[in-house]
Formats: sequence, structure tokens, C-alpha cells
Amino acid sequence: MLPGALGRTVSAVPADATPNGSADGVAAASPGSSAEPTRIGIIGGTGPAGAALAARLADIGCEITLGSRSKYRSMEVVDNIVDRWPDRHLRIHPGANSLAAAEPTVVIATPWDAAAITARDVAEHLRGKVVATMSNALARVDDEFVPLIPPRGSVAASVQATLPDSRVAAALQHVPATELGNLDEPVHGDILICSDHREATWHIAEIVDRMPGARALDCGNLSNATAIEAFTAVLMQLNTRYRTRVALRLVGLDHVPISVLGGGPSGTDAVQPAAETVPD
Amino acid sequence: MLPGALGRTVSAVPADATPNGSADGVAAASPGSSAEPTRIGIIGGTGPAGAALAARLADIGCEITLGSRSKYRSMEVVDNIVDRWPDRHLRIHPGANSLAAAEPTVVIATPWDAAAITARDVAEHLRGKVVATMSNALARVDDEFVPLIPPRGSVAASVQATLPDSRVAAALQHVPATELGNLDEPVHGDILICSDHREATWHIAEIVDRMPGARALDCGNLSNATAIEAFTAVLMQLNTRYRTRVALRLVGLDHVPISVLGGGPSGTDAVQPAAETVPD
Repeated sequence: MLPGALGRTVSAVPADATPNGSADGVAAASPGSSAEPTRIGIIGGTGPAGAALAARLADIGCEITLGSRSKYRSMEVVDNIVDRWPDRHLRIHPGANSLAAAEPTVVIATPWDAAAITARDVAEHLRGKVVATMSNALARVDDEFVPLIPPRGSVAASVQATLPDSRVAAALQHVPATELGNLDEPVHGDILICSDHREATWHIAEIVDRMPGARALDCGNLSNATAIEAFTAVLMQLNTRYRTRVALRLVGLDHVPISVLGGGPSGTDAVQPAAETVPD
Repeated sequence: MLPGALGRTVSAVPADATPNGSADGVAAASPGSSAEPTRIGIIGGTGPAGAALAARLADIGCEITLGSRSKYRSMEVVDNIVDRWPDRHLRIHPGANSLAAAEPTVVIATPWDAAAITARDVAEHLRGKVVATMSNALARVDDEFVPLIPPRGSVAASVQATLPDSRVAAALQHVPATELGNLDEPVHGDILICSDHREATWHIAEIVDRMPGARALDCGNLSNATAIEAFTAVLMQLNTRYRTRVALRLVGLDHVPISVLGGGPSGTDAVQPAAETVPD
């Protein structure tokens, strides 16, 4: 759990706020549009998840800085991505993690146990920004995947505690790197996003919704990152047990872009579920 | 987390084991078949979840003892269920929790914070049996649902620790009581089951697969109950945010009854996922 989040009231987003109107002035751009592309830095971008995300985001028109502890390792990974997709004109630049952290929007894609430490090292660059974490704390024990619960409840909560002046969102935990990085196929499944900062959820959701096949869902505040991150172990376990690649899809839910959805539970218009919807 | 489960090797199930062949000799019965019906006791059965489960299980041909701390409260709830579905000839008997615990298969449907204590009170009746838990530890903070992680990692793990001689499975966490109890409609969504005892997963899965619309999925050992229980908070949050009832459905997964699936990850035939399927 994240004790610091309990009892905190999430501020309502002003009615005129839009997903594109982040405090950083990041403008959304469709591929090929004349607007400035969304610029995103990926810290720890040389791992499978970070590299796959870089390819996917560049493919939807974002301009990426792929950061690493080693800029040479970053150069190698960027070469590999560009070589794999020569006709797609992906705009991915290599660099140190600090260079990635200087971009207006930042994703932390390190292994889970390095996320908070790496964030701390570049904290000065991240002040005021939306920072997404995509790591899960998992261990493999015998033939099973088990979720680990970090002391603050989740990787995302650990990063938020390290970066009190940033707006941290958890996102993209459930998408396998191979699928995310295969630009010939859409992304299957729902992308669950949560944050204590509604505008951070909006900002990440707007980017995710541009990925073919993906559906961004607002899952409330950062305390739910515990459940979202841990649930990855269940998906991994099902992959092993049923020898497949599962994707998460919530049924009974139309695709409502978060920009259309509006204020939500922090507003006065939220519907209270009936008491009997709590299974226990 | 459940430290006791880490490093434990789950025994492989013998090739000739079947889901019906539990140690209690419980036989599966289709509605109207001449075989003995599956007898199930529900501890804490007077709450919304327990009463809904009693109705659903009776409707697929099981014979139910609906237990409560108060046998009179149990009688009242059973009357209500039978009155709601007069033409379905549901076999549901009222009684004390100890009477429910005496049945060959037992479900604990109390509020989450009473599950382990109630289990302890009737532990002598539960020795050697399959015991399913369906509770989630949730709290409502402001307008958000947040998952609580019990000290042993999950409600199910707490109950397993209380009942070392029983075989505890977590199941049915994600189905809203209103849907479970509406016998005019199928159960939408996947039912995730996990246990440190493979035969307990099999036994519960065989029963769940008889519910119209439900698909039982083997999610590995009990350490994943942490993720499964906590994920209920995400589903509740989505219900509030999107004003709907969501159901969980994993895509990319054919329905393979667990009896057909066989040994699984504890056997030598399990497929190891590629390293890059770990998102981080």
C-alpha cells in the first residue's frame, strides 16, 4: 500500500482542461500532421520493454530520446530498431538517461528495482513533468511467476515518492515487449493507467489511444498500481500454463476516450456503485 | 506476499487424476443427472456474495448448505432466494457455519477481515478439504477503491495459514454479486483460480466451468491471490469511472477445461516464455 495516498483528495480537473494541455505545453500530433511531434524520453530504454516502446511511440509519430546508462549501448539499440523498420522513418535519438529525462514527457523503463534509484539520479530534470512507469516487481519461483509488493506498494508509488514534484502515472505494465515492438501488428488489449494526478493519466492516455488497437483506461489513483503491477504475474502465469500470449480486455465497457469522459470520480457527477457490487 | 509459499514445489498431479476425483470423493453431477449432486457449504453465506453464489451453485445442480453465525438469519436468506426463483427447485439448506463447514467442499464468503477468524472457529471440520475463498480486502477512500494487502499477502493466504491441513483456493473474486445471483443471465467473464494445491484448483474449476458463461482459469499458486484479490479494486474503480459493470476477459486464450489441460507448469512439459515477455 501507499500510506501517503490514503485520504488524499484528488483535485478535480478544470472543465476546460484537455489531454493535450499538460503543464509542459506538450502538443499531441498525429503522424504526418504539421503540428510539433510529441517528444518523449525513455529512461532505461535499452531493455526489451523500453526498446519496444520506443519503436511503437516513434511509429505513431512521437520523437523519442532513448536513454541508457551507457550512451553507446543506447546507440546500438537505436541502430537495431531503425534497421528492423527501415521504411518507417522512426525518429529515435540515442543518449544518456539524463538526456532522455530532459524531454517534456518521460517514461521509466528500467528493471523494477532500478526505477526509483534511476529516477532520483535525474530528479532535477523531471520536476513538474509527467513521468510514466511501466515496470512490475516479479520473481520467478520454481515454474511460477509471483508478484512482489515493494515497500510503498508499487514501483510507481516508489517513483512518485522519489519525485514529489513530478506527476507519476503507472501504465503499460501488461503489454508484452514482443507485441509492443512488432509494428506490423496492433497492440491487443487494454492499457490500464493510474495516477494521483488526473492530468498525468489524461496525458498518457491520449498518447496510448493513438496506438492501433490499444484502449487506455483510467483506473483511478496510484494506490491501484499495486494491483495493476501485481496482476502482470497472473498474465505471465497464464501464458506459461496455457502456452499462449494472453491480453487483458475488460468487457462491458465502450471505448470512451478520457478526454470525452471528463471529470470522473473526483467530480460530483460520479455514480456510486450499489453496495452489492462489492463481491464480499 | 506469502513467504511460506516461496520456494515450495507444487507436486505434479498424477496423470490419471481427474477434477472429480478429489480426496473427498466428491462426484460432479450435471443438473438432472442420476449421480449424487455436488454438496457445498458456504460459510458466511448470508452476505450478498455468499447468497448469490448459493443461488448460482444450486442452479447448476449442487446441493448447498448456506451457513451463518445466526441460523435464523440463514433461514431468512434461504427463504428469500427460494422465493425469488420459485420454479428452479433450488436445493439450499440453512444452518450454522459449522453445518456448512461439515460439507465435503466449502466456500468462505464472509467479509475479508472475518475470513481467517471464521475459518479457525470451524477448522476441525475443514481438515483435508478443498476450501475456496472469494473475499477481497478493499477500502473506499474518498471516491476511489483501494486494495489493501493483508499481512500474509491475501485473504486466501491468511486462510491457508489458518488451515494448514486444508487445501485453500482463491476464486470468484471478480464476479459482482448481482450478476452471480441473477440466474436468468450467464456469468460473463473469466474466473481466476489459484492454489498451492493443484487438485484444489481442479476441483473448484470443474464446478465453475458448469456455470453458464463462466470460464475457469488456472492462475498458479496462492501467491497470485495477492494480485487477483487486489485487482478487484481496479474493476470497481472502472465501474465507477465508466458507469458500467466491467467483466474480466483474457483474450488470446481458448477455453481449455483444466481437466484437459493436465499437469501444467509443475510438469516437465511446461513451455518457458521467452525472456522478452517480461515487460521490464
